[in-house]
Amino acid sequence: MSGYRVAVVGAPGAVGSRVLRVLEERRFPVRVLRALGSERSAGSRVRFAGEELPVERASAAALDGIDLAFFAVGDAVSRELAPEARRRGAVVVDKSNAFRMEPDVPLVVPEVNADALEGHRGLVASPNCSTIQLVVALAPLHREAGLRSVTVATYQAVSGSGAEAMEELRRQAEGYLAGDEPPPGVYPHPIAFNVLPQCDRFLDDGSTREEMKLVLEPRKILGLPELAVAATAVRVPVFIGHSEAVWAEFERPLSVVRAREILASAPGVALRDDPQAGVYPTPREAAERDEVLVGRLRPDPVRPHGLSLWIVADNLRKGAATNAVQIAEALVERGLL
Amino acid sequence: MSGYRVAVVGAPGAVGSRVLRVLEERRFPVRVLRALGSERSAGSRVRFAGEELPVERASAAALDGIDLAFFAVGDAVSRELAPEARRRGAVVVDKSNAFRMEPDVPLVVPEVNADALEGHRGLVASPNCSTIQLVVALAPLHREAGLRSVTVATYQAVSGSGAEAMEELRRQAEGYLAGDEPPPGVYPHPIAFNVLPQCDRFLDDGSTREEMKLVLEPRKILGLPELAVAATAVRVPVFIGHSEAVWAEFERPLSVVRAREILASAPGVALRDDPQAGVYPTPREAAERDEVLVGRLRPDPVRPHGLSLWIVADNLRKGAATNAVQIAEALVERGLL
Repeated sequence: MSGYRVAVVGAPGAVGSRVLRVLEERRFPVRVLRALGSERSAGSRVRFAGEELPVERASAAALDGIDLAFFAVGDAVSRELAPEARRRGAVVVDKSNAFRMEPDVPLVVPEVNADALEGHRGLVASPNCSTIQLVVALAPLHREAGLRSVTVATYQAVSGSGAEAMEELRRQAEGYLAGDEPPPGVYPHPIAFNVLPQCDRFLDDGSTREEMKLVLEPRKILGLPELAVAATAVRVPVFIGHSEAVWAEFERPLSVVRAREILASAPGVALRDDPQAGVYPTPREAAERDEVLVGRLRPDPVRPHGLSLWIVADNLRKGAATNAVQIAEALVERGLL
Repeated sequence: MSGYRVAVVGAPGAVGSRVLRVLEERRFPVRVLRALGSERSAGSRVRFAGEELPVERASAAALDGIDLAFFAVGDAVSRELAPEARRRGAVVVDKSNAFRMEPDVPLVVPEVNADALEGHRGLVASPNCSTIQLVVALAPLHREAGLRSVTVATYQAVSGSGAEAMEELRRQAEGYLAGDEPPPGVYPHPIAFNVLPQCDRFLDDGSTREEMKLVLEPRKILGLPELAVAATAVRVPVFIGHSEAVWAEFERPLSVVRAREILASAPGVALRDDPQAGVYPTPREAAERDEVLVGRLRPDPVRPHGLSLWIVADNLRKGAATNAVQIAEALVERGLL
């Protein structure tokens, strides 16, 4: 029997359920699929390949006999169970923040640095959603002109905070429109018809964890340890799809025309840049797609050799599930699984 | 009888109705108030100082005998009627884009450049909403350290496009939540649970009119004709309150601590900068207020002597109505009316 014995840890969640869907859509060679979840979700069912699979409680024992384990859970569960999966011989693809910056863990966006998979030690990290779309768009431009600095303001969907946050936006919006808004729960302030300059929690230096990820992860993925990144991460009342206003500064001149040419044929990118005709990326257009949409290319009047871009992607798919499955595909292609 | 004979052109609109409210709140010395509007709105009524005033059709004749005329209408009506008001001896305070960049028209944010009112020729322009909040926050920092460049990504409320756009957001959001969304009308794409990297129409260089205003207006207001501004203007599903993620670069060093000190006592600014305690500006907090809220001050890792800020204000009040009334107050104080 061909194919891999695959576990999806966090299968009932917003990202986990999309990992199942993407595995199916892309016909990843699955022999056995084991859906794992929290104690609370154990006993529920998820759909995969036309079948209803029972969700088992995630545990070390449940990872026995698995070749490939997708972790679509928070840092704490990844930290506890990913080493157990490795110990049992599985290769782990982890979407959490737990291991991303560890020197012996490849942090991979396949369109950008699939080579980093060589010599992996049984664990590959998938970057944060806002990082993935940024580097998919900037890496091909970096190869052409040498990336020097990045300034990015994000417009992040609530699904980045999980299914509960999507429900909070829905209930708040309904309540607001009816004149009876429920109090905030997931976020410290109302998110309906509001924007919050806070994604994740604040660190001692005044930035958020999300902003710090945007500083550190592109350095590792692009192999640019000195890359300067200024990031302001903002939550907006959108269900799915992160947007980014980006100013990228390069070592060498890079015209808008040339940048468009490069992006038009860049892997994983869909160019949407005809603003006079109303063509530019929006999160509702990006939702349920796998490409990173890029548009509004303009010269940057502030920075020499600078370029201004607008980058949008489905944070649950390319920002999480699709990238994880693409990592698994790259492992298979390279005979690393 | 003391006070001025005041006309408000566009009195029934989103900004015009707020001009009436702000005149009343601030006890501007009004002797006579004439509410003017479009042909369509003529005959309707607006409230001022406890009375219901009839709206008359705006025309040259309706501006006879007026000392002070607020224009809260689009460029075309301002272009037609503001010269008529001037000719009849009124001083015009115009919120439209029609005259802002004319060399003999002061473009004024009273906290920043009230001196520009001296020698006015009967017409003063109030800047675009997104410019006003930006310069209120940056001018005191500029005085300290010398502003060199500004990079700004905006998160703009739909009320910037008028009352019709507020209704469109409401109807779209209701429809979306009920699974039956009406098609877009004011905007080229749905705005509910979406973000659009387009405010106003596109120019030949690929920027929008809104972005061009953010480039040109601060130069004039701050007296910095060479100021480099990179702007990306984005519409978000918020009813009232524009937000801005800003990176400001200065000639001389400016610490976050010193910038906070300056902003804490800057006119028109309310500092909201204690993120660990959940204190930062949001549009829903800024709505119905006159201050420009500033927070999330951080050093900028990309630009030397750079500072990162988050700036939010009510686009209909300080971004339009309040600023116009403050211009009138400054004219009175200086004996220029």
